[in-house]
Parts: sequence; structure tokens; C-alpha cells
Amino acid sequence: MTYRAPVDELCFVLDHVVGFPAVAATDRFAHAAADVTAAVLAEAGQLAEKVLSPLNAVGDHLPARLVEGVTLTPPGFANGYRAIAQGGWVGCSAPPGYGGMGLPVAVTAAVNEMFSGACLALQLNPLLTQGQIEALAAHGSDEIRAIYLPRLVSGEWNGTMNLTEPQAGSDVGALRARAEPLGDGRYAVKGQKIYITWGDADFMANTCHLMLARLPDGAAGTAGISLFLVPKYLPDAAGDFVKPNAVTVIGIEHKLGLHGSPTCVMDYDGAVGWLVGEPHRGMSAMFTMMNNARLGVAVQGIGVAEAALQRAEAFAAGRVQGITPLGNGPINGHADVRRMLAVMRAEVFAARAIALACAVAGDMATATGDAAWRRRAAFLVPIAKAYGTDTGSAVADMAIQVHGGMGVIEETGVAQLLRDVRVTRIYEGTNGIQAMDLVSRKLADDAAAAFALIDEVGAGAEAALAAGAGFASLVMVAAQDLRGATSDLLSMRAVGRQAGAAAYLRAFALVLGAHFHLRAALADPARAALARVAVGRVLPEYRGLLAQVRLGAGDLYADGPVS
Amino acid sequence: MTYRAPVDELCFVLDHVVGFPAVAATDRFAHAAADVTAAVLAEAGQLAEKVLSPLNAVGDHLPARLVEGVTLTPPGFANGYRAIAQGGWVGCSAPPGYGGMGLPVAVTAAVNEMFSGACLALQLNPLLTQGQIEALAAHGSDEIRAIYLPRLVSGEWNGTMNLTEPQAGSDVGALRARAEPLGDGRYAVKGQKIYITWGDADFMANTCHLMLARLPDGAAGTAGISLFLVPKYLPDAAGDFVKPNAVTVIGIEHKLGLHGSPTCVMDYDGAVGWLVGEPHRGMSAMFTMMNNARLGVAVQGIGVAEAALQRAEAFAAGRVQGITPLGNGPINGHADVRRMLAVMRAEVFAARAIALACAVAGDMATATGDAAWRRRAAFLVPIAKAYGTDTGSAVADMAIQVHGGMGVIEETGVAQLLRDVRVTRIYEGTNGIQAMDLVSRKLADDAAAAFALIDEVGAGAEAALAAGAGFASLVMVAAQDLRGATSDLLSMRAVGRQAGAAAYLRAFALVLGAHFHLRAALADPARAALARVAVGRVLPEYRGLLAQVRLGAGDLYADGPVS
Repeated sequence: MTYRAPVDELCFVLDHVVGFPAVAATDRFAHAAADVTAAVLAEAGQLAEKVLSPLNAVGDHLPARLVEGVTLTPPGFANGYRAIAQGGWVGCSAPPGYGGMGLPVAVTAAVNEMFSGACLALQLNPLLTQGQIEALAAHGSDEIRAIYLPRLVSGEWNGTMNLTEPQAGSDVGALRARAEPLGDGRYAVKGQKIYITWGDADFMANTCHLMLARLPDGAAGTAGISLFLVPKYLPDAAGDFVKPNAVTVIGIEHKLGLHGSPTCVMDYDGAVGWLVGEPHRGMSAMFTMMNNARLGVAVQGIGVAEAALQRAEAFAAGRVQGITPLGNGPINGHADVRRMLAVMRAEVFAARAIALACAVAGDMATATGDAAWRRRAAFLVPIAKAYGTDTGSAVADMAIQVHGGMGVIEETGVAQLLRDVRVTRIYEGTNGIQAMDLVSRKLADDAAAAFALIDEVGAGAEAALAAGAGFASLVMVAAQDLRGATSDLLSMRAVGRQAGAAAYLRAFALVLGAHFHLRAALADPARAALARVAVGRVLPEYRGLLAQVRLGAGDLYADGPVS
Repeated sequence: MTYRAPVDELCFVLDHVVGFPAVAATDRFAHAAADVTAAVLAEAGQLAEKVLSPLNAVGDHLPARLVEGVTLTPPGFANGYRAIAQGGWVGCSAPPGYGGMGLPVAVTAAVNEMFSGACLALQLNPLLTQGQIEALAAHGSDEIRAIYLPRLVSGEWNGTMNLTEPQAGSDVGALRARAEPLGDGRYAVKGQKIYITWGDADFMANTCHLMLARLPDGAAGTAGISLFLVPKYLPDAAGDFVKPNAVTVIGIEHKLGLHGSPTCVMDYDGAVGWLVGEPHRGMSAMFTMMNNARLGVAVQGIGVAEAALQRAEAFAAGRVQGITPLGNGPINGHADVRRMLAVMRAEVFAARAIALACAVAGDMATATGDAAWRRRAAFLVPIAKAYGTDTGSAVADMAIQVHGGMGVIEETGVAQLLRDVRVTRIYEGTNGIQAMDLVSRKLADDAAAAFALIDEVGAGAEAALAAGAGFASLVMVAAQDLRGATSDLLSMRAVGRQAGAAAYLRAFALVLGAHFHLRAALADPARAALARVAVGRVLPEYRGLLAQVRLGAGDLYADGPVS
């Protein structure tokens, strides 16, 4: 079945739930007024529905593969990619000076969610290019920016991120790739990188690799890592990028999902590259773009969740089995099926609102330079990434359950969503890493961002109560509990925080999700029914989670030196 | 990596946690003393490790397929099946008079768990035969029993269950298959059945289908359904079963997992069959074997969970990434990885104990005829099935997370476990159907079985407290809450119960799981550490679940006639 782009829903969340109008009111984003944004999203939605959605099953059945050194992509992916590039979507938030639209990241996040819901395997390609554009715009030399940015923004070339090596995954500092200066400002890079998404494609004119390697004088660990730009093709004497560089794809992984996306093993055998940013400062350059990259993965999870929800709703509205409390009719009249569908809807809404609130905070920080906005954005990133992708898996899983036996038949299409979305909880920092980030770096400054958000939740619950939504009292209690747990966490040693990190992240997401549901219900009373489900059936999990947060790490290291 | 059969763990749970010694103390099962059982399990464990485990990846990569009407099975499956049959494992609990071992169902459940953990796709074949043996032993005519049982028990022939039709899944009563009497005691059956597990195989001498169809005078709905035995081959004049019957496989499904197991679309075109049991009483005949069949699916989930846990533990013990609180060493020193592994262990233990407690109750009912045991077994079946299979999915999913990027690479093998186990939450009654069964039929008799179990949990927690396990107080509180929620549920209308059914089932499972952990810790103090994790990190979810139970159905039918 075809994916339907949730344009109206995205506009509602932006305009009435997460405060996007404040972004459009800034000088920086004055060109992103509500009507413009709506038109932009409508256009992207058309592309998602008409062009990208039909490719999703194709990519699953006819995986990308390596034949005689050529990375063959699924039929139709070249056309789909071209449509994305020609629509200007790669450069949705890129600087206008290089051909970008310069729109807020919140708009790009909404667009990326729709493209991900339609065909995640293909959407990974422009998403990584967006990250590279951001990195080069911030850290590239004038020459690099002049050469690369226009071609990346237009989509003529694509960009990749090369971090992982077999022994260096979450521990990036363990990498072994090396770079030797060639004396002419260029470098020769050597090493192998794995899990390189869209590391190559038969339809791209050039593929530009941003890769982490160590200079000869680079220290061990993350402090000695530098960032290099290594294109597949180097310029010839005439300046045309047609000369093969010494970088090759030596394998394409067989994955659980995302079969259409070539996940490459790359070999660099003295490939020519350019330093990006300062020597030994590669990790900090990577961090520049990490927030948006993680937000990009968050909306991947949400996009797939939306697609799975749509399939489950359509199936449950058409399938008849037994007599329901609503009489003869489809299975969406059965209480347990209704529960699953309602919970799925509530979770998709919550995950989307959190991700877009994160994007709005980032845009406000960009537009105003305000530190509070920056802290808020940074705090929300790991929550948006982990909760967005966890929701992707959870909703895809429930969608299978709603389908019954048909759910595990591959032709039905819903099983693919479960397979495709699974890795989003792992790449771009596993969700465990997100939780560590949240309870360490993001609770610095005495957890100012956390407490400010909790204040906001409390005030929102009061407003909802005043408006007659009695169930909002549960959100108020939850906010108080979360405040207490946050204080408790601050008083713990690092290992204690880490032991409760995943639970704390999820509890925070559940409270925020309930909060945004209350806001939606205030803006549109027709949404009160879903808010009630969110507060009654999704939020209560936080209680068990906060109990875990308070445990510390003693039980996990009962027989070790930490207990 | 190779699956290691958890023989010692199974023996510990049987002997010290779920009361198996009482079974072995009955006259009926006097031949199943602890040493005999341990020897039997050790032998089955050897088979699982040496013969079945190596087949698991083979079946995934080389799926069963239909070629010119022949159901080709993966290489090696024929040998694996033969080893199961020759070991007598198909007839583990079958009547000795027909060649069975006559062992308690608890022993068969333990054996089936190991076979499922080693190679679920193949294990499905003998499991369904076991169900058919039970059905024919209870309802088959003398002639049918004499002909079929010895061959099914020996594994020469296999048995299938044919319930589902495209329009009749959870709603079996909607089936359209028909049977016409031929006048000679035989019937001609006509219709199509789908999702027929091991509906055919190139290595079986005969495949016997138990199928549901309607006689000409059969009423609409479940009350008009009869049960027929339809073999693939009929006897010729000499009595040899070589004459093809009019039953054919017309398709094999492409599934998310269990590729090695042929899931067939069967066509009956006037095939000759025999009535099993009374006319129009087919559903009640099916119900006879449903408890054991559901228990069989429970241990499928647990077997896969165990296999996934083993893989995660091995990976985390070998993978080094960064410095952990325990110093330089593998990632199982990181708090969040430790948490995941500990939770996985706690859940596998809990699910296993619940399933084996259910089996023990069934065996005690068989041996003593006591109604309380029978009620207890019946009450535990839906909990064992849903929690066992949910745990299968959850643990396989966490095992992928522990593997990081390698988790989604198919060659690693852990992704297969997630794919394989997913359907166990759907077949043999979806887990939603299990929850409906629990809150309707299984809470009849004023929830006597539920309250008896809750009493037991309370008494166990008191004993643990008396023995100095302070954290057992949380289990006592949980038991009290569960008692209250059970009473609340009893006072609700059907639709309200149904809306909270899934949450109630899971809460009950969490409380029972914690209870069995306390028992294990009492029997073996070295297990107290895991019990503490179970109580601190797994049990607390019950609070949010019981909050949902108390909601009723109002929020789900806010705009419908039920609110």
C-alpha cells in the first residue's frame, strides 16, 4: 500500500505544539512563514507519496550489490534520487549562497520524516549528504567549500561519513586509519572503514567521503583524530572529477533490513584527501554535525512508525474477524486492537513532537544565539534520537501484531518496516550511547535544560487542568517525580547514572510526550481523546522506569569492585 | 556460534523452583525421578547442540520451497528430523502403549525448549505431531489410533493442524471448508487452508492433516465445525499408504523468519478423510490439545530467548570498546550492557519458570485428576504462551542491541533469531487472544486460580523476607496490587476487561516471574543477585500496567457506543 504523507499533521505539530511560529518570527528564518512551510511540506509530501513510496518494496526485494567493483542499486532508485535532488531537498537547510533553500532544520526534519516513511533505504543517501554539507560549511576551507558545497547541495555528488572500523565502533578513538601529508597540502589516507552507508552508487557522479584518520603525530584515543575529505574521483588536469582515487568498495553487507541501501566496506589505499578543520580536531568537527545527524535518525524512526501505523490502521479497518463491542464490523472495533492502534497513534505523535521541538530549539539557537535554546536543543537530541527510533521499532512491531498471521508474510510489506527500522537504534550512536550522553554531558550546568523542560511540563499540565482536562493531574505528578529523579541522578556517581540512563531517557520522553499531547488537546479539543490514551496508557510506564533510575548500579555490579 | 543446551538450568528450575518432584512422586509419573529426568534432558541437550544447532543458519539461507509440486526442505533437515524421531522425542509424552515414553509434559516442555533454541524451524515439525498425537489419543476411533498413533509417535509420519482459512483466522468459526459423507464412514473434504506449518516435506513418508471443516448439517459458527483426519497418502489394496489423496500444496509462504519451515497453502479437492470425535464437536476436540500446544509455543519463545542471550553474552564477553567501570576489558563491564544482559537473564529465567510451572500443574492434573491443578494449569497457559513468546522477541531484540552494528548483519546470526521468533506471538492464538482467554474463561470460578497463585506469591515473599531478602517486600506489595486489580477486573464488563487484558496478563507474568526468582534465591543463595535485578528492574513495570488495567475501555471507545 502507498504511504500517505502526514502533511497536515506535521503542520499542526509545528504550528500548535512545538512553537515553530517563533522560528518563523526571527529575522534569520523570516522566509519560513506558516503558509510557505505548508507549501514546502505539501510538495515534499507529493514526492514521498508518488515517487519514493513505490520504491520501498523494490529496494527490499532487489538489494544493492557489488558486481565487478560496481555498486549496483535497485531499479528505480536512480530516478527517485534524481527527483529528491531536483526538488532541492538535499539542500533544504543548506546555505542559500551554495544553492540551498536555507530553511529551518525543523522543516528539513519534517521533510526527512516523510521521505523516511516512504523509502528509508533511499532517504539515507541525501541524509548523509546533508550532514556532510553542514560539516564542510562549518569546517571546510574556502576552496573546499567552493568546489564541494554547490555539488553536494544540488545532489550531483553525495557525501558519506566514515567513522567505524572493525575494532572501533562506539569507541571511535580506537581507530587505526592513518593519513600522511603529501607535502602539497594534500594527504594520503590508508585504512579500512566499515558500515559506510551509501559508500558508493552506480547513479552518482561522485561520492565524497568524510573520514576520520590519525596523522603521524596524532595522539592515541579521540584527541589524535583528524577529519579528511576523500572523493571517489579526483580532478584531472582540466579540473573534471573523473580521475579514480585509491578508494574502493570491497564489500556490501547483508543486512536485516535496508537492503536497498548499500552498506559498504571501504578500502583506502593511499587515497588522496584534504584535511577538514584543524589537525587532531576531527572529533570536534564531527560533533558539529552530530546533533542534526541524530535528529535525522530520530525522524527516520518516526517516519517508519507513521508508515507502519498507516498499514495497521488500513488493515484493521478492512479485516473482519468475529463480533466486536461495536457490532459486526472490522477488527478495529475489538478492544485490544483499538488499544494497540491508539497506543501506536499516541506514540507516533509524541515522538514526532519531541523531535520537532528539538529541531525548533536548534533553529532558535541558530537564529538568536541564545545559550538556553542551545542547551535545550542539545538536551533534546539524545531523547529525540532514542525515543524516535525506539518508537519506530515498537510501532512496526505492533503493526505486525495487528496484522496477525499476514504480518509475517513478506508480501504484506509490514515486516520490512520492522527489519528496516531496527538499525536506527544502533547507528549514529546506539540508543545506549544516547542515554550516556543525556546523563553525563547533557545534565551538566546543574541540569538547567532538564529542569526548565520539567517546569514547562508542570505549567502545561496546570493550564490543561484549568481548561478542564482532569487527567492532566497525572502529568503534573509525573513531572514532580521526574524532577525528583533528576535530582537523585545528579547526586550519583557516574556508574550509577549510567545504570539508570536508559530508563531515565525513556521516562523523560514519556513525560514530554504526555506534555505535548496536552498542548495538542488545548489547541484542538478533538485531540483530547488521544491525549487521554497517551496519559492513561503510555505515560504510566514512567513509574517503573524512575524506580530503576533510583537503583543506582549496585545490583549490576554485585560481585564486582563497584558494588 | 553453537547453541549450548541449558540442561543444568532446566533441572534446577524443575527440581527447586516449580515443584517437579511432586510430579515424580505420583504413581503415574513414578518413572520420572530426578536422575532419570536429568539423563533424559542431557541426551536431548546433546542432540540439540550437536545435530540441530548446526542446521539453524542453513534453514534460514536455503528456505523450504515448492518445485513442481514437491516441498523441498533445507539440506540436512531430513537428517536432523531423523535424529529427533530415532531418539523417540516425538513421543516423549505419548502413551507407552503406542511406543511413547510417557514422560511428564514438563519434561517434554524442557526438551522442546532446547530443540527450539537450537533450530526452531525444524522443531515445529515434531511439535505439531505431538499435538496431533494428543488429539488422536483423546478423540480418535480405535482403528485410527491403531493405524496412526504408532507411526506418528515413531516419527515415521508427521501431523499438521489445519484451522486457518483466508477469512477465518482468530475467528475460526468463519471457516468454509466442507466435508460430505461418502457413505462408508469416510468423508470427502473440500476447501483451502493457509499457514499450514510443515504441511508437506520431501523427507516424510506420510503427512497427516487434522483439519476443521463443516458437515452438510453443520451450523454456522464454531458450533457446526467437525474435525477430520486427512492423510497425504491413502492405503492401497495391500494396506500400504502409497495412494495419493486429493490434497496438494499449492504454495509456500515467504516469511519474515522460519525460512526452513514450509508454511503451506493446502488445497483439499474432495480428499478422503475420517471424522475424529463427534460430528460438530471439532472445536472442543481441538481445545483438548490446545493447552499443550500453547505451552509448546511458549517454550519456543523461551528457547529462542536462551539462544539470543547466549549469543549476547558471548559477544559482550569478547568485544572491547572503551574503558568500563571494571577497567580495561570487554563491554560487559559497561553499566548499560550489564543492565541489558542482566535483564535478559532475569526474563529468560522468569519465562522458563512460568512455562514449566504450567507444565507441572498440567502433569499434576493428569496424575491426580484434581480440579485445582487443572484450573491452575489452564490459568497459566495463556500467561506462559504470551509471556514466553514476548520474552523471545524482547530478548532477541536486546541481543541485537548488545551486538551494536554487527547485530543487523545477517551473518552474525542474531538477527535471524528476531525474525524467527516473531510469529510465535501470533500463531496458536495471538497473544491478544491469550489475554482475552485469561480475563474471560480463566477468571471464571471467581478467579480461584488467580487468587490461589497470588496467595502463593505472598507466602513466598514472606518466606524470602524471613530469610533476609529485603527486596522481597516489593514482591509482596506487587502481589497485593495484583490482587486488587484482579478484583477490579472481575467487577468490570467484558469490554473493560478486554481493554486491560494484555496489561493484566503481563503484570501477572511479571509478579509470577519475581516470585520464582525469590524461590530460586532461597534454594541457591548465588541466585540472589539475579533475583534482585528481577525485582528491581523487571518487576516495576507492573505498576504502569495495573494502572492501565483499571482504566477500563472508556478511553478507547470515547466516540463510540461503549463509552
